Amino acid sequence: MSRLLGCAVVGAGRIGALHAQTLLALPNVRLAAVVDPDREAAIRAAEDRLVSTTLDAVFRNPEVDAVVIASPTELHAEQIVAAARAGKAIFCEKPVSFDLARAREALAVVEETQVPFQIGFQRRYDPGVVAARERLDEIGRLETIRMLSCPSPFRPGEVSGGIFCDMALHDIDLARFFAGEIGEVTAIGTSFAGEPSDDPDTTILTLRFASGAIGVIENARRTMHGCDVRAELTGRRGKFVIEREHDTSLRVYDEGGRHRDALDGFINRFRRAYIGEMEAFVRAVREGSRPSPGVADAMASLRVALAATRSLAAGRPVRVEEIEAEPATPRRKRKNA
Amino acid sequence: MSRLLGCAVVGAGRIGALHAQTLLALPNVRLAAVVDPDREAAIRAAEDRLVSTTLDAVFRNPEVDAVVIASPTELHAEQIVAAARAGKAIFCEKPVSFDLARAREALAVVEETQVPFQIGFQRRYDPGVVAARERLDEIGRLETIRMLSCPSPFRPGEVSGGIFCDMALHDIDLARFFAGEIGEVTAIGTSFAGEPSDDPDTTILTLRFASGAIGVIENARRTMHGCDVRAELTGRRGKFVIEREHDTSLRVYDEGGRHRDALDGFINRFRRAYIGEMEAFVRAVREGSRPSPGVADAMASLRVALAATRSLAAGRPVRVEEIEAEPATPRRKRKNA
Amino acid sequence: MSRLLGCAVVGAGRIGALHAQTLLALPNVRLAAVVDPDREAAIRAAEDRLVSTTLDAVFRNPEVDAVVIASPTELHAEQIVAAARAGKAIFCEKPVSFDLARAREALAVVEETQVPFQIGFQRRYDPGVVAARERLDEIGRLETIRMLSCPSPFRPGEVSGGIFCDMALHDIDLARFFAGEIGEVTAIGTSFAGEPSDDPDTTILTLRFASGAIGVIENARRTMHGCDVRAELTGRRGKFVIEREHDTSLRVYDEGGRHRDALDGFINRFRRAYIGEMEAFVRAVREGSRPSPGVADAMASLRVALAATRSLAAGRPVRVEEIEAEPATPRRKRKNA
Amino acid sequence: MSRLLGCAVVGAGRIGALHAQTLLALPNVRLAAVVDPDREAAIRAAEDRLVSTTLDAVFRNPEVDAVVIASPTELHAEQIVAAARAGKAIFCEKPVSFDLARAREALAVVEETQVPFQIGFQRRYDPGVVAARERLDEIGRLETIRMLSCPSPFRPGEVSGGIFCDMALHDIDLARFFAGEIGEVTAIGTSFAGEPSDDPDTTILTLRFASGAIGVIENARRTMHGCDVRAELTGRRGKFVIEREHDTSLRVYDEGGRHRDALDGFINRFRRAYIGEMEAFVRAVREGSRPSPGVADAMASLRVALAATRSLAAGRPVRVEEIEAEPATPRRKRKNA
Repeated sequence: MSRLLGCAVVGAGRIGALHAQTLLALPNVRLAAVVDPDREAAIRAAEDRLVSTTLDAVFRNPEVDAVVIASPTELHAEQIVAAARAGKAIFCEKPVSFDLARAREALAVVEETQVPFQIGFQRRYDPGVVAARERLDEIGRLETIRMLSCPSPFRPGEVSGGIFCDMALHDIDLARFFAGEIGEVTAIGTSFAGEPSDDPDTTILTLRFASGAIGVIENARRTMHGCDVRAELTGRRGKFVIEREHDTSLRVYDEGGRHRDALDGFINRFRRAYIGEMEAFVRAVREGSRPSPGVADAMASLRVALAATRSLAAGRPVRVEEIEAEPATPRRKRKNA
Repeated sequence: MSRLLGCAVVGAGRIGALHAQTLLALPNVRLAAVVDPDREAAIRAAEDRLVSTTLDAVFRNPEVDAVVIASPTELHAEQIVAAARAGKAIFCEKPVSFDLARAREALAVVEETQVPFQIGFQRRYDPGVVAARERLDEIGRLETIRMLSCPSPFRPGEVSGGIFCDMALHDIDLARFFAGEIGEVTAIGTSFAGEPSDDPDTTILTLRFASGAIGVIENARRTMHGCDVRAELTGRRGKFVIEREHDTSLRVYDEGGRHRDALDGFINRFRRAYIGEMEAFVRAVREGSRPSPGVADAMASLRVALAATRSLAAGRPVRVEEIEAEPATPRRKRKNA
Repeated sequence: MSRLLGCAVVGAGRIGALHAQTLLALPNVRLAAVVDPDREAAIRAAEDRLVSTTLDAVFRNPEVDAVVIASPTELHAEQIVAAARAGKAIFCEKPVSFDLARAREALAVVEETQVPFQIGFQRRYDPGVVAARERLDEIGRLETIRMLSCPSPFRPGEVSGGIFCDMALHDIDLARFFAGEIGEVTAIGTSFAGEPSDDPDTTILTLRFASGAIGVIENARRTMHGCDVRAELTGRRGKFVIEREHDTSLRVYDEGGRHRDALDGFINRFRRAYIGEMEAFVRAVREGSRPSPGVADAMASLRVALAATRSLAAGRPVRVEEIEAEPATPRRKRKNA
Repeated sequence: MSRLLGCAVVGAGRIGALHAQTLLALPNVRLAAVVDPDREAAIRAAEDRLVSTTLDAVFRNPEVDAVVIASPTELHAEQIVAAARAGKAIFCEKPVSFDLARAREALAVVEETQVPFQIGFQRRYDPGVVAARERLDEIGRLETIRMLSCPSPFRPGEVSGGIFCDMALHDIDLARFFAGEIGEVTAIGTSFAGEPSDDPDTTILTLRFASGAIGVIENARRTMHGCDVRAELTGRRGKFVIEREHDTSLRVYDEGGRHRDALDGFINRFRRAYIGEMEAFVRAVREGSRPSPGVADAMASLRVALAATRSLAAGRPVRVEEIEAEPATPRRKRKNA
């Protein structure tokens, strides 16, 4: 592709605005539109240069080659379907849906139409993760994985699908990225903040991988010490730790000892990752190669999150294959997709 | 007590020799004997100044006020009983026994004879742990605990009681030290090294505390990167991490980046803790106060380790109260105690 | 200014290309031209969107509001003069010239024409430096400064002005930024690499500030362990350290201990600083405020670097006021400016 | 030597008491006496087991093989002479004297009597230093040294010999330990605390080594952030940093970020080094080998400190050979030695 890739961003919230900013800075890209019911937000995200418009117009616009979907989760599935039907390449924030059937249905359209599709697991593009993945052979056969991430704003289970679909999904995907498929999970969790919801705000999820490796993922909605996202991979010959705690390179010493600032917010933590995933998406679409992570990753990680949700409710280990795994053919009867 | 405390060390292996060395350096203490079937080891531990002798002689010796039991685990219970009957204060390496009945029986004699008793959970005396315990209020109500420790030499389950009684027991005790009693555990584990044993070499153990807190303990028999023992406590207002990775203060920089040495061995890691626990024991015995951790801690941590062992075998959560909890009266029928 | 700021980049080498990329990503900016004798480099820097052109055309172009000078040092002075005469706002990489008279002459034209001027001391915009400057009161009266930076490609003194004008100038400026004017310097240095030049590749420069503070700056052209740039500020009540060593958040553990990657290159180290200084320049020009650091900083830091050069040659302390400080009037006789 | 080494400690202040405690814990040693005009201090240091006595009695006591001199500096020279005349092995805290003639005179008696002599530069036995020295070849030819140490209680120049003899002497010795002899020094310094003395409390000392290496030593009497002692060695192929900042392994996280405690006091910082130097001294005396650092190190480091003192006063570089270097023959006329 020699001309610029025309991109539209759907949703001008925090993540959508960030993607718009990234696309503005990328070479070979023309940001063609930012769509949001909140016209002011769209204009801000588009930085005075672009006219926001309706979603339909975007899908009809031949200058739009790709759409970046950063709308609320409940809109993802139908927007994916519409974009795919319009022949647009699709980047979609995770999850496609926390309803397995709807996710499968939407992604079936993607596969049918063969449009390029990338799911927004940006952590795969964090420089520490990239380096660890490239050097994974150094530590030999992977034996254990240990992950932690916090915080994430509380969202009731009805809206978010619960903490595993909403928050742990990133860790689950990263665990799969390093260690392959997960066979069984066991979850415990509790609610410390007393939100009026059944959904816990703090969880521990143990994992058994098909490879024989074992692992654990911890999540907490709340934290007092800033964004804390870590991954620890132990292999037969060594260990990798990916961990970033501080915003600036400033250390402060006083009579109390040594102090460092906290890392303020996951966007700050993952700025390079968000840029990296968008660069990768643009490159794949322009080159005609397959974006990654794609449909299969979106589905597989979601199934693990749903298995975790079931384990927590049932108080027992749950095999991921318990989560229905029939072929992902679109169910025509559903009208609202 | 104005005169020196007469101490005898039973067992001159690695830990026994370390305790002997500590006692030699402590004020107010006279190391009266080191007992070991290996006479050479006893003499080395005693550093030319002390005559090794038989266990019976030690127990009859009126100049021995206290015994430090660092013999193989299978001898602990009977030596505790003999020492208690002889009226000696007792410091015993963990565990008392990995057989709950024998442990209960031996400790019942301790309680009956009212001799001072301390169990060798040295990590409670690690300076980082001491500081964290003192400052625990700072982080508010404790919500999660996250611990990891490795490595530990492989010992078959028949000899060691398995990885939970042999290795995780330290972490379990420390978890209880910070967060109180544990109500339920779930264990997963596997054997990566392929030792000819049913006992896994790598485990993940999740914990539910009576307080509502949750936690996770990871253990691995093997590690390539030296002694790695960590504890992470998250409360409502902050977090503590206790972690020490390096032996020296040397950092090396070269074309590959920055390098630090590994921490070589748990004795090196816990040198100050081993000294601290012995100081505390001597102080308590001399002052007539109750040594800590004592009988109740020895029993409670053991019960959790046994629950973990059962969970691993059964593939389900196990409540600690499932592990028999009848009153600890000595069973006279057992002859071998 | 409501319309976009038209900017031109002069010089499409490493730094020029970086500035072009930054300007492409900035809102409120239109990158109007990249000028370089190497047309291919200019096109690459302009990312297919802009037509490179001659310097004269740029200065005559009414759509160019500001020029970013990133050409070789020996061209800075004349380009500054031409840009100032054309009424353009000027951002210029350091140094203006390592010839004091030429620098003074060029900056006199800037002052005469009153065009906005910013000098490229990007380290003032490093997030750690920004945070330290904002919080400077916390550590009380500043007593000592300790800085180190390495590496920097070797450039013979005839071309670069020597290590103090070429390399230490950044550290000198940062020292002034924190602690104010420098009264006296003493330099020692040597050449370890054996370059065919009188200019040392490794130096230690001690500083006496007008405030009474003292300091030291170390520089080395070579390093084996990546980019290493540090600043340490000690005040009456505390200390700040600004130091960043690693590129990624990956830590590697193996039998040798713990390893981290090196920070590869000063552009990587100062990416956020380079963006920050360009944002500040654009903001100041658009708002009509005075860019900083400006003419006075460019001159003052240069004088200190020249005093250091003299101290090294003379083997004695040199007061900065020894470096001629007559009023900066343009000397008409010089034709080559 | 098969029997225990009989040792006496002269001076029961902070360092003397520490040495007494170390000797009590060392195998192969009998602590025969602690001498101090303050009888209570002596008894405390001796831990109830030893009888304090007069210095003369110590020197006459055939059971005393070695004396550890930890008295005030002004007594060192004469005590060294007396001990040497009595044939005792000598360990002496630094400096022997800050008067070069007296130091030379006392050490001449040591050399004449050929008693074993070790000077108390304990930092050579810090584990980080030991590791760096052993691995020095890894970083290739040493090019620069960068050291910092603080704090140290203020002592007026009349009593202490000034900051270079009193405080920097340790850093000077360590610099020599790594990089060999020093040829020229230049000092700057100032007094921030306003003590009623000409002696500065904060100094920067640059070094030129005979090898061609260069270096810098910074010292400050005061610090707000605990004991801070660092050494950085840069060679052709890499760099070593020796730095320890924290007392415990506890890290605290809260809304302000991450916090670590300060390292409280140089005795705490160098506990292992103090034990290491005493072990080395005892071993050398028992084995009949030459203790290190010895007479030559005591003299050479002192000369550098005196050159630094002269440079500061004169405001110019001073070659170390300017400090008189005539052969160290005892001057019989001095009566007070």
